Amino acid sequence: MIKIALDGMGGDFAPKPVVIGALQALKKYKNLEITIYGDQNEIKKYLTEENERLKIVHTDKFLDMGIKDPISTYRKDKNYSLFLAMQSVKDKINDAVVTAGPTQAVVVAGHLILKRISSMKRVALAPILPSLDGTGKILLDAGANVDLKPEHLIELGIFARIISEKIMKKVNPKVALVNIGSEEGKGREFEIEAYKLLKDASELNFVGNIEPKDVFITDVDILLTDGFTGNILMKSMEGTTYGLGKVLKRELKSSLKSKIGGLLIKGALKKYKAALDSSEIGGALVIGLSKILIKAHGASDDYAIFNAIRQAKEMVENKVIEMVDEILSKKVWN
Amino acid sequence: MIKIALDGMGGDFAPKPVVIGALQALKKYKNLEITIYGDQNEIKKYLTEENERLKIVHTDKFLDMGIKDPISTYRKDKNYSLFLAMQSVKDKINDAVVTAGPTQAVVVAGHLILKRISSMKRVALAPILPSLDGTGKILLDAGANVDLKPEHLIELGIFARIISEKIMKKVNPKVALVNIGSEEGKGREFEIEAYKLLKDASELNFVGNIEPKDVFITDVDILLTDGFTGNILMKSMEGTTYGLGKVLKRELKSSLKSKIGGLLIKGALKKYKAALDSSEIGGALVIGLSKILIKAHGASDDYAIFNAIRQAKEMVENKVIEMVDEILSKKVWN
Repeated sequence: MIKIALDGMGGDFAPKPVVIGALQALKKYKNLEITIYGDQNEIKKYLTEENERLKIVHTDKFLDMGIKDPISTYRKDKNYSLFLAMQSVKDKINDAVVTAGPTQAVVVAGHLILKRISSMKRVALAPILPSLDGTGKILLDAGANVDLKPEHLIELGIFARIISEKIMKKVNPKVALVNIGSEEGKGREFEIEAYKLLKDASELNFVGNIEPKDVFITDVDILLTDGFTGNILMKSMEGTTYGLGKVLKRELKSSLKSKIGGLLIKGALKKYKAALDSSEIGGALVIGLSKILIKAHGASDDYAIFNAIRQAKEMVENKVIEMVDEILSKKVWN
Repeated sequence: MIKIALDGMGGDFAPKPVVIGALQALKKYKNLEITIYGDQNEIKKYLTEENERLKIVHTDKFLDMGIKDPISTYRKDKNYSLFLAMQSVKDKINDAVVTAGPTQAVVVAGHLILKRISSMKRVALAPILPSLDGTGKILLDAGANVDLKPEHLIELGIFARIISEKIMKKVNPKVALVNIGSEEGKGREFEIEAYKLLKDASELNFVGNIEPKDVFITDVDILLTDGFTGNILMKSMEGTTYGLGKVLKRELKSSLKSKIGGLLIKGALKKYKAALDSSEIGGALVIGLSKILIKAHGASDDYAIFNAIRQAKEMVENKVIEMVDEILSKKVWN
């Protein structure tokens, strides 16, 4: 049995999509148990069916999505749904945490409760970006560290390589450094130094720099950068996708002809939307912790939650963390 | 008469779109004279009509779009089309330069030939980003400096304010700092320090941080950041727009129904494309030089060149540089 601790109250629309996503996951995966941490009265509203593999641990405390100071919140009170879910994994009651809660609080609580694995010096947020070929690309760090040293990219890259191989089934995944030009020597001191280190890292299939204009169409599997740049990149892609959707909608409504055309391309638009939707692939992994922690998008629907749970389950099954720890602490690569 | 020096050989498809764009501009603006610098044999192929306000200055040297070391190229030989166009402006034969040549070479040559205005410490690349409301937003620095000090943002912001007011006709344009969060205190040391300076800058209507996810839909007019981040942001938006276009095309071709729908929405798609097309608005201004220098996109078509010429003409007419210099050197704001 794989046991998932689910933060019932994390996310813009919680707990509804969280509960529905959990029920879907339990239906599909018979080796799964889920414990939802949160307000049982709210959660039970959406529990349309009984399932003996679903438990609720009640708390009426949950983090606001705009929380400013998660550290002092945690120090004052450990009974928030996110903290309880994490503590259950730390205490080995559950195997992995899934939450759609506020990013900064998730990263901070991961640090405080789950802790780093000793072989890694930094923790990183690693979302999976949608891509033209539909396979998804791992971006890291996408916002856990505003400053990062070039050498941290190596251990983060190794972690990402294992996810890419074991979970995303890619063979010898390609690794690139996000930069403003394609040649070596481009960028800030950070990129120039990181390029040198990555070129020499035998554990990684480093293919050079990648410019942001190529991220969506590239065949590179893992994109490395510091947390500030990664966050800028991820949110630019997200914002542009959203904005273009609004423009397209506006133009499709602008005449009768285009309205009719819009109806005919409904199926195509649905597939178009799905291709851009990272919830198809799962949430962001918080890489570097001693336990699996998946951060689903704040605006997650039930399908996104389902996929985040699936992703957590696969990572536990594949013993991803054990594998990373072995490689990094023994410095061997098989 | 406004006199424009046009780099005939700059851009992926030069000289064709350059020549056609120049002819369009001359037809529309009767107070315009254009001198094209480049290979006269190539240029004449596309000169479908005579115009006494169009001159050609011949040179058979032009920069490769992938040029690596523009400084030493310039030191060795000053007869490249871009350098000659710039020199003519330095020598007051012309009033402004327009080129679709390689960005780094354009910025470097601007420094070497046109020089900074003495009241500014840095030069910045300032493209106009497309936006949902269609008004365009100035982003700077988008790649002239990989490192920039927070105080440089003030003078760059003042320059952008004048462009925004005088050329883009915006009233009291809003200025924001690109950042990974909306509250003060977010970001790296650079953003934290820049926020404080911008808050106190009476010359600028500073409205706080802007996250990249909001860039396309915002009502902010001027977005300030360092050249590395600005380049990442700009190229992410560009790449996402391009990638989504490819996905949409693919899906529209996926069935007969969607193909028919695609034909019906052709007009809407054209307007959609136009809304995202920065060539509608013009090229990027290289801000901080003693003369007007417009860098059109490398992939510019004739319409983009036409708009870059129009933009240069308007900036000369509005005496943008004189105004900036007066404000910055006297430290007064009217």
